Amino acid sequence: MNKVGIAGYGITPFTKEDNKIEKVLLDSAKEIFKNNDKIHQNEIDAVLVSTNNNSKYLSPILCELAGIQPKISHSIESLCNSGTNSIVSAYSYIASGLADLVLISGAERYDSPGQILQWDNSRGEFKHPIFWASIFAKSYKREYSISDEDLAVVSVKNHKHAQENPNALSKKTYSIKDVLESKKLTDDLRLLDCSRPCTGSASIILASEEKMKKISEEPVWISGIGQKTISAGFTKNISLSSMESSKHASQDAFRMAQKENKDVDVLEIHDAFSVCEPMALESLGFSKEGKGMDMISESYETNNFKINPRGGLIGSGHPLGATGIAQTIEITQQLQSNALKRQVDNASVGLVHNMSAAATSSTVLVLEK
Amino acid sequence: MNKVGIAGYGITPFTKEDNKIEKVLLDSAKEIFKNNDKIHQNEIDAVLVSTNNNSKYLSPILCELAGIQPKISHSIESLCNSGTNSIVSAYSYIASGLADLVLISGAERYDSPGQILQWDNSRGEFKHPIFWASIFAKSYKREYSISDEDLAVVSVKNHKHAQENPNALSKKTYSIKDVLESKKLTDDLRLLDCSRPCTGSASIILASEEKMKKISEEPVWISGIGQKTISAGFTKNISLSSMESSKHASQDAFRMAQKENKDVDVLEIHDAFSVCEPMALESLGFSKEGKGMDMISESYETNNFKINPRGGLIGSGHPLGATGIAQTIEITQQLQSNALKRQVDNASVGLVHNMSAAATSSTVLVLEK
Repeated sequence: MNKVGIAGYGITPFTKEDNKIEKVLLDSAKEIFKNNDKIHQNEIDAVLVSTNNNSKYLSPILCELAGIQPKISHSIESLCNSGTNSIVSAYSYIASGLADLVLISGAERYDSPGQILQWDNSRGEFKHPIFWASIFAKSYKREYSISDEDLAVVSVKNHKHAQENPNALSKKTYSIKDVLESKKLTDDLRLLDCSRPCTGSASIILASEEKMKKISEEPVWISGIGQKTISAGFTKNISLSSMESSKHASQDAFRMAQKENKDVDVLEIHDAFSVCEPMALESLGFSKEGKGMDMISESYETNNFKINPRGGLIGSGHPLGATGIAQTIEITQQLQSNALKRQVDNASVGLVHNMSAAATSSTVLVLEK
Repeated sequence: MNKVGIAGYGITPFTKEDNKIEKVLLDSAKEIFKNNDKIHQNEIDAVLVSTNNNSKYLSPILCELAGIQPKISHSIESLCNSGTNSIVSAYSYIASGLADLVLISGAERYDSPGQILQWDNSRGEFKHPIFWASIFAKSYKREYSISDEDLAVVSVKNHKHAQENPNALSKKTYSIKDVLESKKLTDDLRLLDCSRPCTGSASIILASEEKMKKISEEPVWISGIGQKTISAGFTKNISLSSMESSKHASQDAFRMAQKENKDVDVLEIHDAFSVCEPMALESLGFSKEGKGMDMISESYETNNFKINPRGGLIGSGHPLGATGIAQTIEITQQLQSNALKRQVDNASVGLVHNMSAAATSSTVLVLEK
């Protein structure tokens, strides 16, 4: 299999702006060409657009706007992990030899239709993913005797990290008291426990090993890939306090990369809601069951930025189709020692965890410099 | 690169029925398991859904309904060539080694939102692709002195072929007079010159060479792939009487397959409108410029079923996301000598041509037994 790496990236601020999806997409894509004068539009073999937007033919539209005439172009959708699905698809185009250079652009508007999964919609007013997050929170807290106060640390930490991320939606820090006193949405979920939909875009360029030599002096390689879909509806999940698809995905990703949890220096975790962060750490094998909060609290207290350095989804905002790509950009910046005040010490191996719809499906990527 | 072939398929009738997209999708997917007892749900590594439907997370939904828990699952959209984009993506998952067995299911409802490309929408009442087809027809007829009567043969032939295709939307044959007297939509386009949107679904299974040995005794191999995107808006096309993206795609596909036009025994051509069939034959290199109708007329007169044996889009109907997959199934059946009264003599090499939006993008596949 050909080696595949990240040759460049571009990202926009995550906002509540009311921009057209075509403009949002283009904004991060053109950053790539601005940032790297060795990457030329006419060498791009494939353009993949990651989005839940209902507009059709967005990849050719992006191509037309960006001056690209690729071989392959199409959109990819899988709700909140559309971004990493697109990255894995791009990886396969290169690893198979069908392409050498692939642009992946993910974008979403704050009013994305991907926020509601109609398939799972049978709970009266709770159309938003709040219904499963609330059930997850109740189940997780009961099973492991975790308090709301314990979980609040996730939101406090991630909003704090976001202040060092110039593109983050959150512009404020919060105390544990602030989280606990924020608007109560359900018995087990408060407003500050939730990531927020927003408008934003993130693009990366993947390249084959041969191509990489010509265009990047600090490549980051995708050494491990794991993906798993269990179901679409969250009620088919085996457990409501762990993430089965994430377990499978991480095992495959570590096997492919020939790495273990202890080798990982920095993590992007899909904290759609605060409870997701400890649950994911446990399902990914970084922590024993019920002990995820210990790792998070330690990271918060020592200020080591190891878990969700850019502020996670809670701090950065969650433009669905862009999220997996933004996570991958963060790990790339970390491994290139280019993460400003968010920089983790001696980062050489990073992990991206991106999931959809109550972790009914997950992607895990292992990245190395 | 690993060899990739077609191990099985399933297809539904193309109709005007008002079914839910999830049911339409499932109907063709479950045919596969019914038709081949060596293909098991638990061995499927990836599920790709090809559609323009606005519903999200359709691949995991199909998985849940069909009892599949794959690694990879997502939707792919690229208007009318979503189907072949999905096939090429599946090919790359297998050729790269990330998957051995991939299910691709394409489906659409008669009211698909992919029928209107908003990006290209600046022509008053002509929101439908009729605007470009009409300009193509005028340009092509002028440039090569082709009459409406000449072009009508495409529709007559394809409706006739469709009568031998049990899944086709068309249940009637028409004379040249019928075509010329059908409702006039524009100066250069009549109702019977157009393919019709419909409800339908088509699924195929792609397999690696190793896997193929265990599950199919009559594999059909994908030996050539070519794709090209020129733009999104049709006004960026270099010519209005040829298909630039199809030229590029066919050259790449033939090069990869190490085949020439003369080797091809049977063709699926994207006849969204009658003028597309001769234009495509010319751009794909089967005919000299302006001479595509000669080849079509000869095929019609000798009744050899070589061009669009299942009735093309005009005869079969055009459920956007399913079309490229249905075309590929037709060529598979032809190469397996399993095409009933549509069977072409001694078919060993076939070609699929699938395009979107005034041929601003095209896919060409070469298939061999």
